[in-house]
Amino acid sequence: MFIGEVIGSVIASRKTENMASLPLRIVRRISVDTTPGETYLVAVDVVGADNGEMVLVASGSPARQTHLTDARPCDAVIMAIVDTWQTHNQVQYTNAATD
Amino acid sequence: MFIGEVIGSVIASRKTENMASLPLRIVRRISVDTTPGETYLVAVDVVGADNGEMVLVASGSPARQTHLTDARPCDAVIMAIVDTWQTHNQVQYTNAATD
Amino acid sequence: MFIGEVIGSVIASRKTENMASLPLRIVRRISVDTTPGETYLVAVDVVGADNGEMVLVASGSPARQTHLTDARPCDAVIMAIVDTWQTHNQVQYTNAATD
Amino acid sequence: MFIGEVIGSVIASRKTENMASLPLRIVRRISVDTTPGETYLVAVDVVGADNGEMVLVASGSPARQTHLTDARPCDAVIMAIVDTWQTHNQVQYTNAATD
Amino acid sequence: MFIGEVIGSVIASRKTENMASLPLRIVRRISVDTTPGETYLVAVDVVGADNGEMVLVASGSPARQTHLTDARPCDAVIMAIVDTWQTHNQVQYTNAATD
Repeated sequence: MFIGEVIGSVIASRKTENMASLPLRIVRRISVDTTPGETYLVAVDVVGADNGEMVLVASGSPARQTHLTDARPCDAVIMAIVDTWQTHNQVQYTNAATD
Repeated sequence: MFIGEVIGSVIASRKTENMASLPLRIVRRISVDTTPGETYLVAVDVVGADNGEMVLVASGSPARQTHLTDARPCDAVIMAIVDTWQTHNQVQYTNAATD
Repeated sequence: MFIGEVIGSVIASRKTENMASLPLRIVRRISVDTTPGETYLVAVDVVGADNGEMVLVASGSPARQTHLTDARPCDAVIMAIVDTWQTHNQVQYTNAATD
Repeated sequence: MFIGEVIGSVIASRKTENMASLPLRIVRRISVDTTPGETYLVAVDVVGADNGEMVLVASGSPARQTHLTDARPCDAVIMAIVDTWQTHNQVQYTNAATD
Repeated sequence: MFIGEVIGSVIASRKTENMASLPLRIVRRISVDTTPGETYLVAVDVVGADNGEMVLVASGSPARQTHLTDARPCDAVIMAIVDTWQTHNQVQYTNAATD
């Protein structure tokens, strides 16, 4: 998984029927020291993340291993909202909502 | 998924029989601020996208999760035509046809 | 899929038994404007491509979705020989054999 | 697989239910000469690695092939703690705990 | 698949039980003109390659398609030892043992 920040949304009314009603969010990759990266992707959000929240994204075939994404052409899923992370015993980030 | 622009097509009459009649489109990766990227791939189009339209592409094993691509050697599928996307609450792109 | 040019072959007599007799070709990635790239891989050829021909390669798990590669440790397959491709309504390449 | 060093942890209380109670560790990629890399990811730890230990990470669909990660949206798993590795017949690293 | 050179081994006594007794080799990626690359990975060896031998590595989900790696968290497998390869009708490499 990688850590990302939810920065936007995609609306697509014309799509394969099995993707109907799945929320599509734009996620920017974030470094472990919270520096924003230059990599973006579109992921299905199955946990209800808000804009600006840090999330975990699972990619590839494992992205289908949720109730909402099973058997769908989905290659990236937001499967967790991050509360906090630490490296080398230092807190790098804490979600204000869970602070 | 990533956002891309349909820029062309590939014709291949000699191919594995289970790829017969699947339209092959050339898709250029697009940044979230609509800057064209330097990455291209060939994807099966299952939604009928036109040249110049912005689309979502699912890659890898999930690309087989549509009626048309099931059980086929297809590693990329256009599974949605984008109406609009926004980042940081600003609209970055709106499809003229749905404007 | 990506567009590549068949530039060579690999011979490997010692391999897992389920890869026996599958032709292994070296494919160089080609840009949409036909510029040769610096990326190479080895793919199983299930369509009988000749040296110098432009082909489509499917990678990852989908590479196993052909009769010859099913249930084999094959992560790249040549599944089509390209006749022609165009971008922005301009022909970029036409196979001399199908011209 | 790649060799990495466990450098931290992620806490995420809001996640898909099938990821509950799986420990999420931050792993930094390490070169074969033990130089730390600039690539990080978040992996499920199924072997109980400590901070600072060198581990092996399996990515993609194979990351689900453990009792703890089966049928979960997990695209990276720490599946081994490294005792030692050598290249060109020279030991590059030995785990102090197993030295 | 990609062409690589076996340059070392990893020993890991603490690992998921289904990885027990599988030999873990360090493989360096090799260019088609035999130039050593800067990319390394750890692969399960199912064909008994020696240090210094050129091999083919299959990655991702297909790496599980051998008797030894089936249903294991293995994302890279050495599935062939290369005898020789050629590009543009010139031999680039021949294994001394099979010369």
